[in-house]
Amino acid sequence: MRPNKIFIIALLIVSISTAMAQNRVTAYSYLMPMPASLQYKEGGLKVTSAFAVGIKGHNDERLRAAVDRMLNRLEMRTTLATSRKPPADAASAALVIECGGPGKTIPALDEDESYSLDVSGSQAVLKAATVVGAMRGLETFLQLLDGSKDGFVIQAVSIQDKPRFPWRGLMIDIARRWQPMEVIKRNLDGMAAVKLNVLHLHITDDQGFRIESKLYPKLHQMGSDGNYYTQAQMKEIIEYARMRGIRVYPEFDTPGHTTSWFVGHPELASKVGPYEIERGWGVYQPVMDPSNEAVYQLLDGFFGEMAALFPDPYLHIGGDEVEGKDWDANQNLQNFIIQKGLKDKEGLHAYYNQRLLKIVQKHGKKMIGWDEIFHPNLPKDIVIHSWRGPKSLAEAAKKGFTGILSNGYYIDLMQPTSEHYLNDPVPENTTLNEAEQKLILGGEATIWAEWTSPETIDSRIWPRTAAIAERFWSPRNVRDVADMYQRLPVISVQLEDLGLLHKKNPEAMLRRWIGTPFGGADFIVDRLRTLISLVEPVKGYRRGSMQKATQFTPMTRMVDIAQADSAAARQFASEVETIIKADSLKNGVAASLKGVIAEWVSIPSTIIGIDIQKPNIIAEALPLAGDLIQTGMIAQEAIAWLEAQKTPSAEWVTEQLSRLDEAAKPKAAVELMIVKPVRELVIAAADQSRRASMSADEWLKYVKTKAAPQKTPR
Amino acid sequence: MRPNKIFIIALLIVSISTAMAQNRVTAYSYLMPMPASLQYKEGGLKVTSAFAVGIKGHNDERLRAAVDRMLNRLEMRTTLATSRKPPADAASAALVIECGGPGKTIPALDEDESYSLDVSGSQAVLKAATVVGAMRGLETFLQLLDGSKDGFVIQAVSIQDKPRFPWRGLMIDIARRWQPMEVIKRNLDGMAAVKLNVLHLHITDDQGFRIESKLYPKLHQMGSDGNYYTQAQMKEIIEYARMRGIRVYPEFDTPGHTTSWFVGHPELASKVGPYEIERGWGVYQPVMDPSNEAVYQLLDGFFGEMAALFPDPYLHIGGDEVEGKDWDANQNLQNFIIQKGLKDKEGLHAYYNQRLLKIVQKHGKKMIGWDEIFHPNLPKDIVIHSWRGPKSLAEAAKKGFTGILSNGYYIDLMQPTSEHYLNDPVPENTTLNEAEQKLILGGEATIWAEWTSPETIDSRIWPRTAAIAERFWSPRNVRDVADMYQRLPVISVQLEDLGLLHKKNPEAMLRRWIGTPFGGADFIVDRLRTLISLVEPVKGYRRGSMQKATQFTPMTRMVDIAQADSAAARQFASEVETIIKADSLKNGVAASLKGVIAEWVSIPSTIIGIDIQKPNIIAEALPLAGDLIQTGMIAQEAIAWLEAQKTPSAEWVTEQLSRLDEAAKPKAAVELMIVKPVRELVIAAADQSRRASMSADEWLKYVKTKAAPQKTPR
Repeated sequence: MRPNKIFIIALLIVSISTAMAQNRVTAYSYLMPMPASLQYKEGGLKVTSAFAVGIKGHNDERLRAAVDRMLNRLEMRTTLATSRKPPADAASAALVIECGGPGKTIPALDEDESYSLDVSGSQAVLKAATVVGAMRGLETFLQLLDGSKDGFVIQAVSIQDKPRFPWRGLMIDIARRWQPMEVIKRNLDGMAAVKLNVLHLHITDDQGFRIESKLYPKLHQMGSDGNYYTQAQMKEIIEYARMRGIRVYPEFDTPGHTTSWFVGHPELASKVGPYEIERGWGVYQPVMDPSNEAVYQLLDGFFGEMAALFPDPYLHIGGDEVEGKDWDANQNLQNFIIQKGLKDKEGLHAYYNQRLLKIVQKHGKKMIGWDEIFHPNLPKDIVIHSWRGPKSLAEAAKKGFTGILSNGYYIDLMQPTSEHYLNDPVPENTTLNEAEQKLILGGEATIWAEWTSPETIDSRIWPRTAAIAERFWSPRNVRDVADMYQRLPVISVQLEDLGLLHKKNPEAMLRRWIGTPFGGADFIVDRLRTLISLVEPVKGYRRGSMQKATQFTPMTRMVDIAQADSAAARQFASEVETIIKADSLKNGVAASLKGVIAEWVSIPSTIIGIDIQKPNIIAEALPLAGDLIQTGMIAQEAIAWLEAQKTPSAEWVTEQLSRLDEAAKPKAAVELMIVKPVRELVIAAADQSRRASMSADEWLKYVKTKAAPQKTPR
Repeated sequence: MRPNKIFIIALLIVSISTAMAQNRVTAYSYLMPMPASLQYKEGGLKVTSAFAVGIKGHNDERLRAAVDRMLNRLEMRTTLATSRKPPADAASAALVIECGGPGKTIPALDEDESYSLDVSGSQAVLKAATVVGAMRGLETFLQLLDGSKDGFVIQAVSIQDKPRFPWRGLMIDIARRWQPMEVIKRNLDGMAAVKLNVLHLHITDDQGFRIESKLYPKLHQMGSDGNYYTQAQMKEIIEYARMRGIRVYPEFDTPGHTTSWFVGHPELASKVGPYEIERGWGVYQPVMDPSNEAVYQLLDGFFGEMAALFPDPYLHIGGDEVEGKDWDANQNLQNFIIQKGLKDKEGLHAYYNQRLLKIVQKHGKKMIGWDEIFHPNLPKDIVIHSWRGPKSLAEAAKKGFTGILSNGYYIDLMQPTSEHYLNDPVPENTTLNEAEQKLILGGEATIWAEWTSPETIDSRIWPRTAAIAERFWSPRNVRDVADMYQRLPVISVQLEDLGLLHKKNPEAMLRRWIGTPFGGADFIVDRLRTLISLVEPVKGYRRGSMQKATQFTPMTRMVDIAQADSAAARQFASEVETIIKADSLKNGVAASLKGVIAEWVSIPSTIIGIDIQKPNIIAEALPLAGDLIQTGMIAQEAIAWLEAQKTPSAEWVTEQLSRLDEAAKPKAAVELMIVKPVRELVIAAADQSRRASMSADEWLKYVKTKAAPQKTPR
């Protein structure tokens, strides 16, 4: 009746001391993006409340503000209050910044972002030619902060760093669904943390015209439901970005994607109005009338205004997805095509682009547009923005055009980080020569807004965009997926310090989804959290075939709470691989996995086992809960066969695979991500007699190949 | 090897159907504050995507905006997209609002906030004399939304409602620590949700001068580190509040609490400068010089500016905590006291207040100040703001002065909700007659900022302030603590829909606190979450004696993650009561409690059991983890004695109580909240032979009395 408490406490203290006494054997820092060159050194720089930053050489408000922001985050993480006052002797500070000069007043494509960072046990020295370079180095410095047995330290390193690509962007679609100022600001902070340097705002589309035009106020007044940025607010965003070394440039998509323009200005369209703001999603027909001089007059005026508002030299004119049905149906335009010798509607689009180019150039800007604008007659300083793919981009490069890649970086499509991460603007097997490769300026992650609300946007952007940022910044050979997944969750937690809500909001949405509690609500939340951690939203454009939505649809369903790239499922898949590769499952090799599965299998009954009066919610969770039981029990059986080293009957195998096919079908627009590994367990159990004839790796490959479903389940 | 899966799935579906078939037997809605009069009716109004709001009678922008905000939240919770268009026939809408008129342009103390709400199965009708009354009713309407077996419904009710007190406030201290705009805005939304109607901004103090003065710019330029509201920003806050039916009034605390004024204007002080912004906490000596006419000139100019900026008729002049040492030491002032016949420094303060009153009145404002300003010579329309207590307030009322109560509502002091909830501005046993009672206008919850950052402020205000709001709004006899604790967590989750971070931020802070993960980090977060759920920050002013902090200290330690009023500890205490009252612990009466304790006892070893290199964190959590083991094991032993119906030795009892005394001592400025119930278990085990001679209630009372520690542990 009296356990020896003193002994237990003593044991506890001993364990701690032991744990603390273990020094790190190998240095490993959670850096993202990885620097171009990194050497670890012995030890680290202690961070105490005496920590101070000294600035040598160039010193300005932008640099001081960046230092202040870094100190805020350092203090939050260490709980230390540093003095904040610049030391009397800058050279004696714990962190010395040697800054060569201000760099460009407005962040520019040819900004020098390089820096070097040397941290020893006594001091850290950050050298950069420009303030923006110093900012990039400050982010690396902060990522080197870690706990140790002696308190907080900055890992000792020697880093030489510079970006691989000069154009590393994030495009945010504020047209389809409105995103208020605070969303943009906190995401700019996130971008700066991972060294992205371009914010591309997709400002107009069929569903909204989101910027104030003083010359043509009907554009925003009638095209936005009141959800637009005033020019003063846009200036505030641009300045906020400038302070972080980030360019901001606008996209005004024309001649298609223009319904919202026509609500106030129907005379610009190729078809007689009136027009209403489009609320749905798709490729719509409203399109500018290239034969109407009033179109070019308005564009001249409006682009003039915007050219003055946005200091960046680039202006994106969209140009994508012009089907031209309204052109086909307009006899005047058909005559115009003949009269101007334009051949067909592609010719008409090219004519429009030529006119647009003159306007853009007149206002001192360079044109950027989607693949469709590419035309050999265009000047070489335009930028092709590729949604079609690296091939399309390479073709343009071979003809001497610069380009950036977004194909493969559509983060709204809910694909796993690894796919984006391995997608390279200039892959190793590129057919481009060195000069042509230089024309590929970089890329942009794009968050299109059909299924994205201000509440969900952060969790759709982060943390996956951090890995894309590494693709754009780090050398091509930094592409170890497992290592990336080791670093990503750490960076993800650090991004929260910037006010990003990618981890906070899904939790809160789950609480809301449960709604009014009842007995055991916290327990239900826990169980549903686990269920949701095992599912992912359907990928690509599948959600649109499963759920209907407009601009107004609340994004608060199970699929909106679910995240891309389930870490729990990835972990499960990896443990399944270990088990498949094991010589034998005797001696409890599968014990931990069996524990996990047993917990999963118990979830549905707990969800149901209470007096639930929330059918709205259960309706979405229930089929998944059923699939989870099914899949979990099949896994249990397969493991039992493997442990017993007995081969199940062919009927058993057929039946389980067919059940797994059912479980693999998405429900409520989410997919249960553990089905695939369980298929592998079933195949491994069924074919275990072949195991002996193969190496572990061959056997795993055999199982994976055979377990792969023949086609994507629909 | 083949469990009957089909059977399990079938069972699962049957259980659901059964659960769904159960109608609510008794209507219970999670309303807070409770209405003055509420009758439940049969059934409810279904909420579908056809839901629309019709406005009859008065209709204006403020009302339409309130309806829109309500619809946003309704859609988030139901996942339904409603049409949003006002129906052609307002009277046929699902919710009909009959609004009598606009009410006051600027929310006022005598605003009519009453409303009636009648919900049947076919329609809801909300009637109010003013737009603000309709807003209050819309909040009640939304709180009636619940899931049911038929989808979402508004519970059928008949409600007649109006506030008990006209002054229901929240004071936010933006002087000691800066709170940016978004903090104020989201808290205004939270206030509106629980029908609070006054935001009191404590704008100036020793530690900061937080408003732009165009006449005396040195005040904010030199007194704020750049952290102040421009007049334009303050107008934005006032308008945001007005749209929600909330008054905003400022406090400019003088003649003490004025160090920040003197940084730019040392000539106003009673002692020769220079002055620096105060960074620490306490009562400081810098004080205005009442003999200096320049003081009144500046106050006249500045209050004139502020009177124009803040439309509210009240202006708070502080007046608290004037020790007057700088007055004692100033010979000119001693002469001034004699010369003016002021007797002493209290007389000097009264003289200053009289002069100040004239300035306040000259600018058309009524004066409000803390207890100290009370003086029989002051006019009766001033308001006494009591930090001293209901007695002080009653004395003023007996002399004909109006007053509001804040004593007992200092939410920064981390007391449990129940204490604030039962604290009544006019308690049942009041000695005031009816006319005098009317002079008590209401009260204000106050969040002083010594230990509050923008990241933690929401969790210090919410959800406890919702219960205080009920105290101010609902009838005095609404004071069932258990019922309040039933409703509070539901309201707390709903407040998240307004962007409040009271639940989100502690979770994120916990993730940051763990820092760079290592193997099993998620598991550690889970375990530490449980540990922290069992502790509370020390109450009252104790933290200041345990931790040193200035305005700059990061608020990111364990005590900042911890919340007041631990629900887990309250639940534990209640289960311990059940066990103590039980006739016998045979038949597994204590099984559930034993399970909970076993989990707690396992926490510390898991925290330690991995390769942790975070001593900074462990240093704070470790003593608590040790206490948790100790306390949990003592509870296990006491339950074992009770189950065995054997009395432990006197030595055992003495030893455990002494250990519990140790465990009750705060560590890292938090207290382990399960110690008290475990003391009760020990006493129950020790004295169980007496159990038979008492009723269950007598026995519980006996145990509780004997278990109560003789004095608060230090």
